[in-house]
Amino acid sequence: MAPALIEPRVLRGFRDYLPEEMIPRQRMINTITAVFERHGFAPLGTPALEYSEVLLGKYGADAEKLLFRFTDNGGRDVSLRYDLTLSLARVAAQYGNLPVPFKRYQIAPVWRAERPGHGRFREFYQCDVDIVGAAGPLAEYECIQVDYDVMTALGIEKFSIHVSNRKLLEGLSSKLGVADGAQSRAIARTIDKLPSQGEEAVRTLLSSDAGLNSKQIGTVFEYLSLKGSNEAILAQLRQFFANTPEAHSGIESLETIIRCTGAAGIPEGTVELDLSIARGLDYYTGTVYETFLLDLPALGSVMSGGRYDGLVSIFSGQDVPAVGISVGIDRLFSGLKETGRIPQAATVSQVLVTVFSESTTPQSLQAATRLRSLGVAAEVAVEGGALRRQLKYANKQHIPFALIIGPDEAENGTMTLRDMESGEQRSFATIEAVAARVLDQRDDHRS
Amino acid sequence: MAPALIEPRVLRGFRDYLPEEMIPRQRMINTITAVFERHGFAPLGTPALEYSEVLLGKYGADAEKLLFRFTDNGGRDVSLRYDLTLSLARVAAQYGNLPVPFKRYQIAPVWRAERPGHGRFREFYQCDVDIVGAAGPLAEYECIQVDYDVMTALGIEKFSIHVSNRKLLEGLSSKLGVADGAQSRAIARTIDKLPSQGEEAVRTLLSSDAGLNSKQIGTVFEYLSLKGSNEAILAQLRQFFANTPEAHSGIESLETIIRCTGAAGIPEGTVELDLSIARGLDYYTGTVYETFLLDLPALGSVMSGGRYDGLVSIFSGQDVPAVGISVGIDRLFSGLKETGRIPQAATVSQVLVTVFSESTTPQSLQAATRLRSLGVAAEVAVEGGALRRQLKYANKQHIPFALIIGPDEAENGTMTLRDMESGEQRSFATIEAVAARVLDQRDDHRS
Repeated sequence: MAPALIEPRVLRGFRDYLPEEMIPRQRMINTITAVFERHGFAPLGTPALEYSEVLLGKYGADAEKLLFRFTDNGGRDVSLRYDLTLSLARVAAQYGNLPVPFKRYQIAPVWRAERPGHGRFREFYQCDVDIVGAAGPLAEYECIQVDYDVMTALGIEKFSIHVSNRKLLEGLSSKLGVADGAQSRAIARTIDKLPSQGEEAVRTLLSSDAGLNSKQIGTVFEYLSLKGSNEAILAQLRQFFANTPEAHSGIESLETIIRCTGAAGIPEGTVELDLSIARGLDYYTGTVYETFLLDLPALGSVMSGGRYDGLVSIFSGQDVPAVGISVGIDRLFSGLKETGRIPQAATVSQVLVTVFSESTTPQSLQAATRLRSLGVAAEVAVEGGALRRQLKYANKQHIPFALIIGPDEAENGTMTLRDMESGEQRSFATIEAVAARVLDQRDDHRS
Repeated sequence: MAPALIEPRVLRGFRDYLPEEMIPRQRMINTITAVFERHGFAPLGTPALEYSEVLLGKYGADAEKLLFRFTDNGGRDVSLRYDLTLSLARVAAQYGNLPVPFKRYQIAPVWRAERPGHGRFREFYQCDVDIVGAAGPLAEYECIQVDYDVMTALGIEKFSIHVSNRKLLEGLSSKLGVADGAQSRAIARTIDKLPSQGEEAVRTLLSSDAGLNSKQIGTVFEYLSLKGSNEAILAQLRQFFANTPEAHSGIESLETIIRCTGAAGIPEGTVELDLSIARGLDYYTGTVYETFLLDLPALGSVMSGGRYDGLVSIFSGQDVPAVGISVGIDRLFSGLKETGRIPQAATVSQVLVTVFSESTTPQSLQAATRLRSLGVAAEVAVEGGALRRQLKYANKQHIPFALIIGPDEAENGTMTLRDMESGEQRSFATIEAVAARVLDQRDDHRS
């Protein structure tokens, strides 16, 4: 009796990336990686599974419910990582010989048992750069420069990097007479919901969740109403927080960042102070960033992060400053796709080397080997069969060329190259000439 | 009261890859990826978590005990993937519109709850190419060509690709009068242990585990003693299996593969027929491969695979041929390291751009930005401080150059480039000249 068939399916909230999705995605990741490395960030790898205690108690209660947490075969309480930042903080505390500052990037999946929905998955990739051990505003500026360079390298012209600082919210709490850390964090989390939920909802939540009275809520909105050019906002902040020293270092950081932005030639208007930016996670302590595509504001932030000086000390007991920024590659990819910036690609092959018969197969294999050594992605039609069928495959796969070596060609040492789009066929005497023709075409397509 | 510190540690059998390990590892993976793509394999992504039923019943009982299997928040029976092959088989059955043949590669972690030990980890990377939907021996040859090209691209000169075919073992079972599939597979698994456990152990296991009598065991060793040149082994196989049709298609595949190897110019002696190669996993049905570094035979196979025609039908009910090969990148990396082929690298930065004071910072930021646009990996010394301290960091990190822009340089528009190894300092008038000097040096280092 044949065993029952097993239904081929993926878990809800998980997905396969088929080549047509994976090829442009991988190219996007390669572009981002090149920017990270050009800034001197080095790659780091950490395990997918961590002791649960490494992850618990840092994200806030809402996030913790989303952990994929279980007991392993050895009875250990383990969880799939929820983000890459906690593992980095662990690494920073665990190894004594890391450079200071420690600049690393990591591009890897994370897992959250969210209710799956539009653009929300249970497995998705994070793509982070972080600088551990640098306290000054230049490190915060560096993340903005990386942000700008990533967007530019991806061919995005219209985007805006919104910046604020958690220290301002500490100042705001002080001004409100709120001394309790938990209440302070609730205010930050609530302000973070302003862009998505609007002013009325935030007013209600500031009362119900953050426990503020109407006078205090008035002060919060006075703060949130500080608008204008970056310079105008900085001037208003200095006035608003004149008697609130808790906010002063935050204002200074923002001043330096804005100055550096101009110095390094980031175009005016790209970096905007925006006091509604707070970031939801509890661990942020300083400058915070979000990045929006001007064509698709509803997409939400595609690159976000901030300073989180307290996180490493949970493991090491020592204060270690840290700041980082993360590309939301899934969201960004879907945004680029929507605006037509992702070229279609279902194949990486540039030439299908056809196979005619057993007697000509050696020539086909040699041609493929030599094309590859000349930098051409050459696929051999391993199933052979009728030439028509082989060409049909090249067509379906959008492979730009087919190389045909039949008995005539094999005898006189020539090759026929067929342009799959036009159908034009040309005879070539050398493999170098074939490669040159194919690589030419590739450049045309890519430019 | 401060909360108790959490000990920073990784789970047993898991590990962090710090930059000094991750940088050369990533370069190795990039080289391998380039070979895969030059052969026309396209990337595929699949989830880390699968329904347990997708994985169960395919690897054999020993392997199944090693699954990281648990019940998720929604009550589903799920497992972390054990290899990449099963997910590929699921994908091949799940999507109707895949090309035939479907050539994909995937480089991703897999998880097995093995007893951790020397070179054995619970999380490790697999690096696979597979061709689904191609039944002929050219597809099997293609995997050997990929194997050869990967080894060569990694600069390995002395290696040997050992090839056999599971159909020969089917023929052997038939010759032994063994009709039971489970007993047949037990024979294959036991033969697979010959290189690691030796002849005496295999004789014992063939009796105790595979249930063979001494005459049958004699026949097995008669088979295993067929040695000599590839042509000599093929001739002996034809004789040995003259009356055993089950083995004939296997012999024909091996003949074609050996012929193609010569035709494509793979040097004589690189591909060796080796009848002790069986592969442990149950799902193999045809040609099987293993690859050994001649300098380090004890390392075991660094690139292995084979044909597994029955696997997709578990999901689809239809016979779909498939063949693939997998680079054991962890093992290969440790082998390359041991033989001095992995250059030390703890940084990706080529220049540390130093920061002198607030007034010269704009020039430093501009220089870094322009260096990056010229293709140089330029890191800004974001923590500033004494120049001596900045240079000490460059030294410790083995960053080859430091760019110094002090007040004098800022005023007269020059830059001083310090070669960190020799200590030599030279003044440059343009950033292009600085970039040219740095990139020159880089080529020196890499060649």
